[in-house]
Amino acid sequence: MARGLGSRKGREESGLFAVEGARLCEELLDSGAPVEFLLLSEFADSAARRVAAEFEERKIPILETAEFEFDKISDTVHSQGLLAAARWQERRWADLKFGPRAVALALDSVSDPGNVGTVIRTAAWFGVDAVLLGRGSADLLNPKTVRATMGGMFHLPVCRDVPLAEALARLKGQGFALGAGTMDGATEWSAWARSSRAALLLGSEAHGIAPELQALADARYTIPSRGAGESLNVAVSAGIFLAAVSG
Amino acid sequence: MARGLGSRKGREESGLFAVEGARLCEELLDSGAPVEFLLLSEFADSAARRVAAEFEERKIPILETAEFEFDKISDTVHSQGLLAAARWQERRWADLKFGPRAVALALDSVSDPGNVGTVIRTAAWFGVDAVLLGRGSADLLNPKTVRATMGGMFHLPVCRDVPLAEALARLKGQGFALGAGTMDGATEWSAWARSSRAALLLGSEAHGIAPELQALADARYTIPSRGAGESLNVAVSAGIFLAAVSG
Repeated sequence: MARGLGSRKGREESGLFAVEGARLCEELLDSGAPVEFLLLSEFADSAARRVAAEFEERKIPILETAEFEFDKISDTVHSQGLLAAARWQERRWADLKFGPRAVALALDSVSDPGNVGTVIRTAAWFGVDAVLLGRGSADLLNPKTVRATMGGMFHLPVCRDVPLAEALARLKGQGFALGAGTMDGATEWSAWARSSRAALLLGSEAHGIAPELQALADARYTIPSRGAGESLNVAVSAGIFLAAVSG
Repeated sequence: MARGLGSRKGREESGLFAVEGARLCEELLDSGAPVEFLLLSEFADSAARRVAAEFEERKIPILETAEFEFDKISDTVHSQGLLAAARWQERRWADLKFGPRAVALALDSVSDPGNVGTVIRTAAWFGVDAVLLGRGSADLLNPKTVRATMGGMFHLPVCRDVPLAEALARLKGQGFALGAGTMDGATEWSAWARSSRAALLLGSEAHGIAPELQALADARYTIPSRGAGESLNVAVSAGIFLAAVSG
């Protein structure tokens, strides 16, 4: 079964996703997410075995596997020999509740798993209250996305397959000031960044944000260039915007 | 010969590196860097063929190859069928000249090519005057690094294999205020960011900056977290610092 977790279809069918490595598995355990079982390779190092012992204390089944078998399942080149099969607890975007001061981040069609994961890691660092992944974005539960979040996905609600037009309209109705990161926006966004409820919409580096979503934004903002290049990486942009947002 | 460009050894021996795709090849051509030849696959699309015509105008030899041959050489999964073999013109760090207002960026042991490339892309966006790659950093001419720079490497001097202790001491002697991004630094860096000559030193996410290099810094700075996580991605950190530096 674990072998199917590398594909979106396999993950949808089983309801499980894979979390690899000692540090990420520890974050998973701390998050309280339900874990079905832990795969432990015969070549697992001592750090991995220490974490495995914590899983065992919580009565999570440990399956010891041969190195050869483990490598067929693992997505990681330099694996530590530890892989948890966890059950993702879907958060519905319509159920999200926000405090009087809140920051939300939405991604439209960001298809690279590493970028989506790094955006989520950055959002967790800056205490963002929710991340909404639109329908064309990389799957959160793709092993590459999971790895790039560096555990950030266990620290804030991340909603998948969100119909962004509906969800962003709802955020605006809840008093969020919606800023869209584009290439032709205003370079001054300090008033927006001080909004008690601020929402940031970012798109793919190649295609930007869909016009119908841009049309929902209260304003478009651009990180001004002082040099060369057509764009910034989406996670770098997210970091620069989020560092400025007070929430 | 081109097949050897995927390895550092092959690149060192030939003095060449590979640049793939229509947009990057165009940036390469615009940069004036010497190009030995251009490989054009039989399945190259029209955008690639338009760029190839520009190479032909500059009297650069075009080698047409079968799809099968091209795929053996290309590092890209979804290739456009265009690969330029270019000669890297090494810039010696000791020869760098800076104006009265300048920003320099140094990386210590950042081993992931995607991260190094994205840092360079970000540095180009913000008009950084030079990037110094320390000895443990990913090779600039690795195809993954080249791709991640998105052409940024053709827009500013990037020095490789730099002995950072020497180079940073020299920058300090030239009046650069040297700030190191660490996990335990000051969260207020506006005075440093306004320095007429500012240098930023960043390290790997896993290992940080070597102690002997940290010791050279005038101050250590940290991007304050309002949430969870052990660190930010190095390119995200670079973006947040560089957005604040006026140069």
